[in-house]
Amino acid sequence: MRRWNGWGDDTVDFEVPQAASKYLAKLIGPAAPPNIISLEEMMAMVPASRLPMHPLLNTDPEERIRHCFGQSMSDWIYFRGGLVPIFPDGVAFPESDKDVREILGFAKEIAARVIPYGGGTSVVGHLTVPKGEQSVITVDMRRMNKLLELDKQGCLATFQAGVRGPDLEAALRAEGFTLGHYPQSFELSTLGGWVVTRSAGHFSMGYGRIERLFVGGEMETPVGTVKIPAFPASAAGPDLRELIMGSEGRLGIVTKCTVKVTALPEAEIFSAAFFPGREESVTAARALAQAGIPLSMIRLSLPEETSTTLSLKDGWQMDLLYRWLAWHGIKEQRTMLLYGAAGTRKKVNWALRRVKEIIKKHHGVYVGTSVGKHWYKSRFKLPYIRNNLWDLGYAVDTLETAVPWNQVPVTRKAIEEGLRNALIGVNEKVHVFTHLSHVYPHGTSLYITYIFRLADSPSETMLRWQTLKKAASEAIVRTGATITHQHGVGIDHQPYLAAEKGALGMEMISSLCHTLDPEGMMNPGKLVK
Amino acid sequence: MRRWNGWGDDTVDFEVPQAASKYLAKLIGPAAPPNIISLEEMMAMVPASRLPMHPLLNTDPEERIRHCFGQSMSDWIYFRGGLVPIFPDGVAFPESDKDVREILGFAKEIAARVIPYGGGTSVVGHLTVPKGEQSVITVDMRRMNKLLELDKQGCLATFQAGVRGPDLEAALRAEGFTLGHYPQSFELSTLGGWVVTRSAGHFSMGYGRIERLFVGGEMETPVGTVKIPAFPASAAGPDLRELIMGSEGRLGIVTKCTVKVTALPEAEIFSAAFFPGREESVTAARALAQAGIPLSMIRLSLPEETSTTLSLKDGWQMDLLYRWLAWHGIKEQRTMLLYGAAGTRKKVNWALRRVKEIIKKHHGVYVGTSVGKHWYKSRFKLPYIRNNLWDLGYAVDTLETAVPWNQVPVTRKAIEEGLRNALIGVNEKVHVFTHLSHVYPHGTSLYITYIFRLADSPSETMLRWQTLKKAASEAIVRTGATITHQHGVGIDHQPYLAAEKGALGMEMISSLCHTLDPEGMMNPGKLVK
Repeated sequence: MRRWNGWGDDTVDFEVPQAASKYLAKLIGPAAPPNIISLEEMMAMVPASRLPMHPLLNTDPEERIRHCFGQSMSDWIYFRGGLVPIFPDGVAFPESDKDVREILGFAKEIAARVIPYGGGTSVVGHLTVPKGEQSVITVDMRRMNKLLELDKQGCLATFQAGVRGPDLEAALRAEGFTLGHYPQSFELSTLGGWVVTRSAGHFSMGYGRIERLFVGGEMETPVGTVKIPAFPASAAGPDLRELIMGSEGRLGIVTKCTVKVTALPEAEIFSAAFFPGREESVTAARALAQAGIPLSMIRLSLPEETSTTLSLKDGWQMDLLYRWLAWHGIKEQRTMLLYGAAGTRKKVNWALRRVKEIIKKHHGVYVGTSVGKHWYKSRFKLPYIRNNLWDLGYAVDTLETAVPWNQVPVTRKAIEEGLRNALIGVNEKVHVFTHLSHVYPHGTSLYITYIFRLADSPSETMLRWQTLKKAASEAIVRTGATITHQHGVGIDHQPYLAAEKGALGMEMISSLCHTLDPEGMMNPGKLVK
Repeated sequence: MRRWNGWGDDTVDFEVPQAASKYLAKLIGPAAPPNIISLEEMMAMVPASRLPMHPLLNTDPEERIRHCFGQSMSDWIYFRGGLVPIFPDGVAFPESDKDVREILGFAKEIAARVIPYGGGTSVVGHLTVPKGEQSVITVDMRRMNKLLELDKQGCLATFQAGVRGPDLEAALRAEGFTLGHYPQSFELSTLGGWVVTRSAGHFSMGYGRIERLFVGGEMETPVGTVKIPAFPASAAGPDLRELIMGSEGRLGIVTKCTVKVTALPEAEIFSAAFFPGREESVTAARALAQAGIPLSMIRLSLPEETSTTLSLKDGWQMDLLYRWLAWHGIKEQRTMLLYGAAGTRKKVNWALRRVKEIIKKHHGVYVGTSVGKHWYKSRFKLPYIRNNLWDLGYAVDTLETAVPWNQVPVTRKAIEEGLRNALIGVNEKVHVFTHLSHVYPHGTSLYITYIFRLADSPSETMLRWQTLKKAASEAIVRTGATITHQHGVGIDHQPYLAAEKGALGMEMISSLCHTLDPEGMMNPGKLVK
């Protein structure tokens, strides 16, 4: 069953290897297992619902708890530490567009607020329930999960928006197709969620971010239905798809999505290479991105992340790898590049040959496909380590941005140093490491992970996290980077959005909210105030 | 010098070959040269300007005539037939962002309306001056044509928005780069114009439409400056770039554009193939688009266009070609596929080999590179034929749409038949032919050319054109296609926009206009009413 207070299914665990916990203890100090409250304790905190009865509403306390949180660090401190959150007053599980319209109509009638809920995996507070006198309905889209239409000839599929990653892929694969969209949350998150948060997947380099995959659909809003026809391209004025994408529940509830699909690739390969240091490898990643090679993925772990990742493994194979790399001049500052290609066998082979040439030119060492295969197989297991690290007393959080290539060193350094030094005041160290998760010809994302020790009390842990998040966000804004490349805005990034959108840009977004949601009932407080 | 009343430079002509005029006469009847008014006659129509003096304004009658028109058929009937248009009261030629702000401020002060003007090549009435008591200033951006910054490492270039195609490419090529954006209007049109009309170029299959090339910039609006930072990607809410693109002068004046550039390709090749008929070749084009081959272009002329194009040529080479094709079973219903690839020599060769396999599989016959080379060399000359056909008494116009693959037959047939039968009431025939100008994995554009005879009077010709345009636009809307794939909305497509945007979509666009232009001074009547 889905964990109510952590990542993923409760039958899956990611045991922290002893080597890794030793490594962490050495870096930021030993930790003590925290007190973790139980579901029963949380149940006792749930107040009576303020909602009148309605056949589509469930006001069961456990459902209200289970729809109270996403996966932001703030959510974790609430559900693990036992801070008292604001609960939604009820949860709706619509099965049709008509149900969604019914819920929106009812909410309007009783002046309730509405929070759309996909897979519940937001890491930036999209699902946080606002304080206030108005009751709150969370709308869980899980039952709207059908494949409605598949145009095989035209490579277009229309799904209900609540379909989760694995169900979507299963439906397509049965017919010989794939969407190719694999955000880290893939196993839990939904198509509609990907659309409204501008999701990027592991293989977005090949298949495109959700922006390139989502071609049309429908959104129910408080003032009616917005329909976007699925044209291959159009010059008919501003593109309304691009307003729905990134709308984060502020404009309405996306009910249907038409997406581009691709015939299943004949071949799919993942390989790895190591480089002697940071600069060479970033230059190599840039060269690869600009070479126009049809790759599905480039992922570059910088030295600190490479060391941390390798600390999760041990054994004679690792010794052998280290010695082999050292023999090639690749030592402590080593960086690890993972890359993938998918398509016809011929195309994949051609692409991989070209990549090897570029790796060699930049003093990298190709190490074959076993590291890549291992990453591919275990890639959705990694987030589970958050549960187990917390149990040991460590909090792990991630954040991300994107910048043009020439800005990579400045922004990366500012964020990493901001995080590393943020808790000096309380004498705490922070372990920070970075990878490039998505590279483009004209820039790259920077994906930063940071680990810190839990404090004695949840409110003190919250203070630590807020201090860290503020330091990183300010570094992002100060160096002119985007506040988010793939996680979205929510409430965590909301204070920093105006820095990149500008005052007029914020007004443009607000005016759209006002047009489709004049009463401000949709997911208030997220994206824009 | 630029023609005031036709396409392009007045030193360039496209003589209609006798074979072609005979072909036309046979198809839709012989034509008689029309009366064409002179610049002097038009000068006599220009009323006094209603503008107060301002150092940035030019109220010279010839400038006002030269900025009165675009290249829509309606514009042609005015400037060639001598109907009296509404003239702008003055023309501004800003040299800086400050000048643009100054002009907008002045216009606001005197309650004037403002029409942004790039290359003056709009074919849908973007530049038409509205009737009314308010004076009108047309802002010609030609002097804002500088390359401001080139980030070679990051493949990003920032230009002032008034730079024309050839100047932009010259500046980039001098540094080893290209934008790769070649709309049919390339020689005259501007970067800012491409952005605000969502332009597509000949090689958009490889380099991307302007939507993929434009990554950031600045727009001056009546309420201030909108700045869009050039991130490689972002999940920070709705994408404001996508509101500026397609805004058609309604929100403000784009002054600066940062675009993705690419290192000049090592090799660039154009080839051609013929197919025995319509269906096989559309299927082949689809297969090519879906095969993920790195091509820069696929352009498929359907039977009627192939015959028309070939009628422009004669001689023994053509006889040879026909005989050779016939020997392969390719006869009257022949279709012509042009395709191109650019990149490293290896990549191009690999791509071309793959294309040949697919052509063969679909019963096409590869005919080498000479047809492709000829097309490439003369591709910007073709629109000049509009001048010469008019001189003979024929009007030629184009329109375009885009649809998912399964809708191609229905939409194409509806448009072609709509046009062919539109003038039955006045006993006139219309010659109609189509090509697929841009193909995508999940659909294609349809580009339709139609030729009809001028009537005895310009107002009668206008009626003919309006009847034709209405028939085609209604066919597009009725079959659920987009009203424009690359030309934009302007005034010609405005009545049909709501069919695809919906009432709420139109409100969303209007609310953006109202936010940035509360007085409605920017290019009124275009895009939305």
